[in-house]
Amino acid sequence: MKKHILSALVENKSGVLAHIAGLFSARGFNIESLAVGETEDPLFSRMTIVVAGDETILEQVRKQLEKLINVVKVNDFSGMALVERDLLLVRTHSPDGRRGDILDLVEVFRAKVVDVGQDDMMIEVAGTEQKVEALLDLLRPFGIKEIVRTGRVALPRSLR
Amino acid sequence: MKKHILSALVENKSGVLAHIAGLFSARGFNIESLAVGETEDPLFSRMTIVVAGDETILEQVRKQLEKLINVVKVNDFSGMALVERDLLLVRTHSPDGRRGDILDLVEVFRAKVVDVGQDDMMIEVAGTEQKVEALLDLLRPFGIKEIVRTGRVALPRSLR
Repeated sequence: MKKHILSALVENKSGVLAHIAGLFSARGFNIESLAVGETEDPLFSRMTIVVAGDETILEQVRKQLEKLINVVKVNDFSGMALVERDLLLVRTHSPDGRRGDILDLVEVFRAKVVDVGQDDMMIEVAGTEQKVEALLDLLRPFGIKEIVRTGRVALPRSLR
Repeated sequence: MKKHILSALVENKSGVLAHIAGLFSARGFNIESLAVGETEDPLFSRMTIVVAGDETILEQVRKQLEKLINVVKVNDFSGMALVERDLLLVRTHSPDGRRGDILDLVEVFRAKVVDVGQDDMMIEVAGTEQKVEALLDLLRPFGIKEIVRTGRVALPRSLR
């Protein structure tokens, strides 16, 4: 099923998130990734929601969301030219003599080493989902200990 | 009130997010930032939740969360040495003759220009909340058109 990226401007109030998440789950949509961050105005947050599902039903959900009292606006970014970003922190095992190999990957991916332990390293990488997945695939043979991801955020590109 | 960072490993199922968000809102906690991303195992997601509030009540909420059938584990990272990251996409106005000034800021903050329009630029920056806020403060005089943030993710540093 096609993935959709919804971007919702909501009031920064207790209960809004539960309400929105509840609407998706009532319609059987599983939220694949969700990022909620502050906007320039501390009264409002912006939620970026990635869901896979039927376009017609999703459009109904989008309209229902916009009717909620604490929701200002919900945009479906499907079909638009976007800049999409995802951030990953990954702690990988770094076996003796292999640290250099990991550092080479970090350089190629313009990632960053953000912590080093006796036999592990923590790496930060930001990029498209594909880029983040590609680095993860290459780190996997070293032994991944822990990961945390932000989920995707997106903004439409400028019209030129 | 003190900010807490909770990290929850949850089953990747419809309804889990609504349930968790509902528990926080029922106790009057406003979720300041939330990031939900996939883990190495597609059956599970990791949620990073930033909330401000009373420590005793939050510990009760943490325990309640862990009792939910779809929640595997909830850690409170308070007081631990952490690597914390937040990602921002910001579209800023770039008035005639000022593009160079914006590019200088981008370089100092090791940020990236990810899109350029006739009179605007989109910039990506990842870092601690303080770093992201600092760049935003310096871009504000140019005229910020749009921003989206991931919310914070965190992992504990290695014990050395």
